[in-house]
Amino acid sequence: MKKRVYSAMRPTGELHIGHYFGAVKNWIKMQEEYDCFFAVADWHALTTNYDNPENIKEIRRQMVLSWLAAGLDVEKAPIFIQSHNLYTAELYLLLGMFTPVSWLERCPSYKDMINTLSHKDLSNYGFLGYPVLMTADIIMYLANLVPVGVDQVPHVELAREIVRRFNNFYGEIFVEPESMLTNVPKLPGLDGRKMSKSLNNTILLTEDADIIEKKIKTMITDTKRQRKTDAGDPNVCPVFDYHKVFSTDEERAKIIEGCTKAEIGCIECKKILINNVENFICPIREKKKVLDKEIQNIDEFLAPSQKKANDFAAILMEKVRKAIKI
Amino acid sequence: MKKRVYSAMRPTGELHIGHYFGAVKNWIKMQEEYDCFFAVADWHALTTNYDNPENIKEIRRQMVLSWLAAGLDVEKAPIFIQSHNLYTAELYLLLGMFTPVSWLERCPSYKDMINTLSHKDLSNYGFLGYPVLMTADIIMYLANLVPVGVDQVPHVELAREIVRRFNNFYGEIFVEPESMLTNVPKLPGLDGRKMSKSLNNTILLTEDADIIEKKIKTMITDTKRQRKTDAGDPNVCPVFDYHKVFSTDEERAKIIEGCTKAEIGCIECKKILINNVENFICPIREKKKVLDKEIQNIDEFLAPSQKKANDFAAILMEKVRKAIKI
Ligand code: SF4
Ligand code: SF4
Repeated sequence: MKKRVYSAMRPTGELHIGHYFGAVKNWIKMQEEYDCFFAVADWHALTTNYDNPENIKEIRRQMVLSWLAAGLDVEKAPIFIQSHNLYTAELYLLLGMFTPVSWLERCPSYKDMINTLSHKDLSNYGFLGYPVLMTADIIMYLANLVPVGVDQVPHVELAREIVRRFNNFYGEIFVEPESMLTNVPKLPGLDGRKMSKSLNNTILLTEDADIIEKKIKTMITDTKRQRKTDAGDPNVCPVFDYHKVFSTDEERAKIIEGCTKAEIGCIECKKILINNVENFICPIREKKKVLDKEIQNIDEFLAPSQKKANDFAAILMEKVRKAIKI
Repeated sequence: MKKRVYSAMRPTGELHIGHYFGAVKNWIKMQEEYDCFFAVADWHALTTNYDNPENIKEIRRQMVLSWLAAGLDVEKAPIFIQSHNLYTAELYLLLGMFTPVSWLERCPSYKDMINTLSHKDLSNYGFLGYPVLMTADIIMYLANLVPVGVDQVPHVELAREIVRRFNNFYGEIFVEPESMLTNVPKLPGLDGRKMSKSLNNTILLTEDADIIEKKIKTMITDTKRQRKTDAGDPNVCPVFDYHKVFSTDEERAKIIEGCTKAEIGCIECKKILINNVENFICPIREKKKVLDKEIQNIDEFLAPSQKKANDFAAILMEKVRKAIKI
């Protein structure tokens, strides 16, 4: 039997290439190899954004359309909305009953995020319980594997502890999930800093050709290379990090040679990248335009997926209630 | 328009006279005067009993049958099961997103109960969030009034704060509930201590006649009154506290006179009480026996009530989701 994978993303609106190479690309591969459940984690978005009434509904739609444009296929793996499965809220409530507050307080992400986002009042009950909700998300589908970044490993570890505690009290119902560390290529922001939507230093997955050109033209390079006659170092150049993702071995070999020997200029080097990025993005962008017209009502489109997820949860929660004797 | 009342009781199995005079009697009156919602708070039972897999399902049934036997009427006010309305879990989750942990930690009940029940590991996430769940319960039905004991007033106060915060962020959807302090007669345990199921010092609402007699016969009296020829003091006698609840003014006048002048003995005094308690309990006990046979499936019996509650919640949650833009 195929192993089951659960993965989710917070609704972030337009996806950028960081989302693609950090997660979506991997999902597209996994939907072929595993029994996957992919979710839009819109409740999780509230843990940090409760006071910012963005239109999560529309952002959600845009994100799912981008997933589909990039290659996710609801026929291969259901895509569903977290907040449209109330069983998850029920399981979150039940798991909370025997999850010690101390387990949550010692989560490295808890103190980290409170420090990082100290301008926000994050010491909220929901934020503290974020790993409990994440546990409910994962174990509801009896997922064996959870693709995560290093920072999320402690959350999966906590999910395992919660599963052990539940199974110990009430009987073997849940499966202990495992972290699945994925190989994510280094892709800095256009300005060399960490890629981030709020810094506006990234390329959208549906970026127009002229914007791609403009953005890459103004990208930071090896800052020590002032003119074409200076030799450059691709190892310290963000443009070259992009070539590692978007260009061929041959192109990269040519650039290393040309840059270190001061034989090609940054403008020429960037032209190759512009071309490759546009070739990568073009089909996704055009597909998304079509989907945007075709799929007006995303909830309706996802209804069969949502039903798969909710039906799975319904059966599991029957067992859970029986075990708890409630 | 009638004011709306929400009230709930944790499933405690067989009700005793303390439950009746502390809450149920008041509910029976309120169902005539207000628009009431009465709930079996079975999720709340898990906050302190998560590790004790009692059969909440059967206990729940017994409690509701006792309510009905005592005079609650689902035609007048819906009676429903908290855990059978998943919208409550959803609202609990959403409210938690903006409820500061500090508000919960400062709840007097939080530290109190952790101290009192220190043999149990109560520092659980669900226990900390008990007032958030209670808030969801209450405000879901836009209740104006919540009949509570003094110890629960801070919880209703917290519910008001949560409502203000929600309405402030997302618009005026919820109603600030008010505590409704009810006049509860002093009714000590048979041994003079606090009445409590675990001390086995109370009379069940469905107690058999011979047990009533036995229990009252061994009740503690004015301990200074050793023999009939000693004068007694009804003011310090638990038996007289019961007379205040179960006997007529005339009977009480006779007892005060007889006791203080050493003219009646405690046995005679108790005989009057035995008779009155049996007269009070007999119809409830017999009604419960009939209901116990008639209503095998309590969920089925409560289905129309449950539907009323859940339909109300469904409409409200539509508004809530729209306001939060999720
Ligand atoms: S030639 Fe290319 S790799 Fe070299 S510094 Fe310029 S942009 Fe970077
Ligand atoms: S006569 Fe009645 S009131 Fe007086 S001490 Fe005895 S039991 Fe109590």
